Amino acid sequence: MADASSPAEASAQAAAPAYPLAGVTVLDLSHIYAGPYATFLMAMAGAEVIKIEPPGTGEHLRVRAGIGGAALPFAMLNGNKKSLSLDLKSDRGRELLLRMARGADVLVENFAPGVTERLGLGPAELRAVNPRLIYASSTGYGRSGPYRDYPAMDITVQAMSGIMSITGFPDSPPVKSGPALCDFFAGIHLYAGIATALYERERTGKGRLVEVSMQEAVYASLSSNLALYHGNGGKAPARTGNRHGGLAESPYNVYPAKDGYIAIICNNNRHFHALLKAMDREGLRDDPRFADLKSRVGHMEEIDRLVGDWTRERTKGELAALFLANRVPHAPVRGLDEVVNDPHMHARGSLQWIDHPQFGRIVVQNSPIRFEDVPPMPLVPSSRLGEQNEAVLVDRFGLDPDEVEALRRDGVI
Amino acid sequence: MADASSPAEASAQAAAPAYPLAGVTVLDLSHIYAGPYATFLMAMAGAEVIKIEPPGTGEHLRVRAGIGGAALPFAMLNGNKKSLSLDLKSDRGRELLLRMARGADVLVENFAPGVTERLGLGPAELRAVNPRLIYASSTGYGRSGPYRDYPAMDITVQAMSGIMSITGFPDSPPVKSGPALCDFFAGIHLYAGIATALYERERTGKGRLVEVSMQEAVYASLSSNLALYHGNGGKAPARTGNRHGGLAESPYNVYPAKDGYIAIICNNNRHFHALLKAMDREGLRDDPRFADLKSRVGHMEEIDRLVGDWTRERTKGELAALFLANRVPHAPVRGLDEVVNDPHMHARGSLQWIDHPQFGRIVVQNSPIRFEDVPPMPLVPSSRLGEQNEAVLVDRFGLDPDEVEALRRDGVI
Repeated sequence: MADASSPAEASAQAAAPAYPLAGVTVLDLSHIYAGPYATFLMAMAGAEVIKIEPPGTGEHLRVRAGIGGAALPFAMLNGNKKSLSLDLKSDRGRELLLRMARGADVLVENFAPGVTERLGLGPAELRAVNPRLIYASSTGYGRSGPYRDYPAMDITVQAMSGIMSITGFPDSPPVKSGPALCDFFAGIHLYAGIATALYERERTGKGRLVEVSMQEAVYASLSSNLALYHGNGGKAPARTGNRHGGLAESPYNVYPAKDGYIAIICNNNRHFHALLKAMDREGLRDDPRFADLKSRVGHMEEIDRLVGDWTRERTKGELAALFLANRVPHAPVRGLDEVVNDPHMHARGSLQWIDHPQFGRIVVQNSPIRFEDVPPMPLVPSSRLGEQNEAVLVDRFGLDPDEVEALRRDGVI
Repeated sequence: MADASSPAEASAQAAAPAYPLAGVTVLDLSHIYAGPYATFLMAMAGAEVIKIEPPGTGEHLRVRAGIGGAALPFAMLNGNKKSLSLDLKSDRGRELLLRMARGADVLVENFAPGVTERLGLGPAELRAVNPRLIYASSTGYGRSGPYRDYPAMDITVQAMSGIMSITGFPDSPPVKSGPALCDFFAGIHLYAGIATALYERERTGKGRLVEVSMQEAVYASLSSNLALYHGNGGKAPARTGNRHGGLAESPYNVYPAKDGYIAIICNNNRHFHALLKAMDREGLRDDPRFADLKSRVGHMEEIDRLVGDWTRERTKGELAALFLANRVPHAPVRGLDEVVNDPHMHARGSLQWIDHPQFGRIVVQNSPIRFEDVPPMPLVPSSRLGEQNEAVLVDRFGLDPDEVEALRRDGVI
């Protein structure tokens, strides 16, 4: 960070909120979701993130945003970053990246394994010029092992990792999980690894190569189904729809309402009795079919029919009000329209409407990692490709303006 | 860390691998999935994690493991931790926790909002005794805002966050995503926040309260569907099954095989022509219905029929061999049996069979965050409740053995 040159400036600096990653500089070569999410979180924690993309078109997600399909995700994941266009396949582009790496703390990439090595910009080359640099790499299956070069997109990793086989109704084919969870699990693990390496570097003075594979990053989330698999081996049902993954609780399902669906979960007698009270059916408390969890599980079909026949006559709002009053664990199944307008997330500042210079009025997210005593980082809209070329190269890395002009003329930036 | 008391010991210490979080002590009050995953990752990065649970039964997941339902997840998430039983509702238990907090770096909890405050162990009390302590909290909806006290389990947050509404087939009800992704997204964001705060503390000397909400932690993973929502508003389909979330690519689906299912994704002509070659149908390259992505999307039903009729006559293995040879992006839909025995993950050391003293032969995961130059942390099986009571209280925090005996007698530990 720059030294304060006057007492007034020093005082202004002292008054500004101090974000945890202030002073950290990140060179971001990443694209689409996994890498950009990691660097977005870094930017929102106070790091200076320089997003480096091919001149002309920019990264894949920017291309898709340009033809209208992915404007919102591009803007969501790339706010608060500086944009630099740079042709890494040219000698001068490569040299410039190495020069910047000398003054940076972290480099992030999510190319297929081997790509940066072929560019002459692998971990060995980069850490040779800056042993303090943290090199962070996200791939589908890791930088080693027999599947290293398997094609890795969110949907292929969902298939390979078991996610698809455990999602859906028992009498329907396997179905992908709607969220791009392989990409985003990889991205947040990558951020976590970088932050860990930054901590370590404060103590050792040395950088690290940090690596995350999408396949490994989602494995732990299978826990509930792995429990059932472990307990029942080959006899475990692959998919249980909206019922408990272990078919060990009831009522536990998504039930129809007049205007949609509502999830209800009763883990114990207290919850079940609260539900019966809400349904005005407390007489059933003593019915031997429903007396305890075990007998309820044995009469799951009857329970689901009983509850579903009652819920379908009411709206989600009516049901939620009854359940809140009676303390029945529940949640309405909300559509994206309700989610992006969620009063709670807007009240907390985790979602915010902004007027984006390229994409118009959109809703964007702040970081889900909150630090007390600093306000959420003010959101800066994502930049146009190369919008900060001068600011980065001249002001930040000391290039001569004529040199920058020559780079532009020759298509290097 | 202890000082080396002889040159031989100093040399042995220098030779041991230095893990990034060596020397960090974590008090772990968390349960089930989110918190324990965060602290598991800390343990695997070298931290000393002391898992603190109620005497008698232990945390919820240990109870479930004891009756057979969740042995594997409990073991997966709680290896490499020390177990201390401690009654936080008693005055002496509370005092002991405050005493330990003086010598710790991080405290992790995922109780409902307000629980630790009611115990007299909220962030204010803890940081009063140790301003360097990082207090890390994971909740369903955050520590503030109108939904703060809403019931939060993985399935209710899946319903509220929009995940359920975008998962499943268009002609079926919404369905939950199989993985417990709300719990695990919260857990890994929590770890990330803690690592960030540890880095910051090296620079400022001060701890932070770090907070993560499950609802906020999954929001970004909705990106693809938010793109479609943004582009088409109310007219966007909520669910597209295994087709592209934006219905903007074809072939892109999960197709039947003789012995299961296989995902195929063609993002461009190169992929599609490779698929036609694998199918020995290159004559179709010039068919105007399939000439480019746009026309293929316009004939999605025909494409899916054409591809599906061909795949269903072959096994997953036959298809995968053909697709690998022709470079067609694809992946077999694998069941949990294939996943836990995955030769790639075992080759990389990310999965490993261990003989667990309580649970027998099980497969457990190493950390998905890999640091070059240190071998993966050797896996230590999860402990029995209170197994390290003496080691923690006497050796680590300096209590008198008689004092520990009195605490045990009085049911405090």
